[in-house]
Amino acid sequence: MIALHTVHRHRFSFTQDDVILFAQVSGDNNPLHLDPAFAATTPFKRPIIHGALASSIFSKVMGTEFPGFGSVYLKQVSEYKRPMFVDTEYEGVFTVISIDPNKHVAEIKCEIIDVATGKKTTEGVATIMNKEEF
Amino acid sequence: MIALHTVHRHRFSFTQDDVILFAQVSGDNNPLHLDPAFAATTPFKRPIIHGALASSIFSKVMGTEFPGFGSVYLKQVSEYKRPMFVDTEYEGVFTVISIDPNKHVAEIKCEIIDVATGKKTTEGVATIMNKEEF
Repeated sequence: MIALHTVHRHRFSFTQDDVILFAQVSGDNNPLHLDPAFAATTPFKRPIIHGALASSIFSKVMGTEFPGFGSVYLKQVSEYKRPMFVDTEYEGVFTVISIDPNKHVAEIKCEIIDVATGKKTTEGVATIMNKEEF
Repeated sequence: MIALHTVHRHRFSFTQDDVILFAQVSGDNNPLHLDPAFAATTPFKRPIIHGALASSIFSKVMGTEFPGFGSVYLKQVSEYKRPMFVDTEYEGVFTVISIDPNKHVAEIKCEIIDVATGKKTTEGVATIMNKEEF
């Protein structure tokens, strides 16, 4: 069982190959993510990671680590506050903020921090059902 | 420019190969999505698509079709109301529900409908900045 206020951390980074693969599987070939010449014309100056790829880390952690296998995703809120880049170390921080033991459902705050700067790039809340953990 | 209340529709389906590829790029190898024997022990009876893969359709549509290139994702809310399966035809329905012309930001309601049953599997709201369209 996972208790209220438990915190789980997960370090990760993405490569440009990951971004290309995500563009293929999602069909999102927005040049903002793929084309350095196009990205140079934007305020970001260089390609940024798809927000949905960043959010896929939430899916990975919920589905495989915390709470892990058996989790069913009910809802995800993701707020993209700062751009994210390839070959950059990030830390996902996951905090249990509510548990409904009757429904086996928890709300888990999800944050992504740029490890070098300490700045938050993404924040949101996942709502997860897991009959063994909540 | 895209007007308030404009509706955009996008039909799609996923194959099991898409699910396997998404598991690879996201790292989410939860057996609920990949292992028919495990999935048979769950209320879903067969493997379901990752919620985050379903949400990647929102990213694709926002980034490449509606509003399209130049879109910057600020926020996504996704509520997974019913399971989704491979080899099943779905329709994404996207409706502009608010526009802030000063910030060039719109809120777009996102729904996924099972074409055969008419039932809604997923709903949420995307918040998108696009300087040319809003």
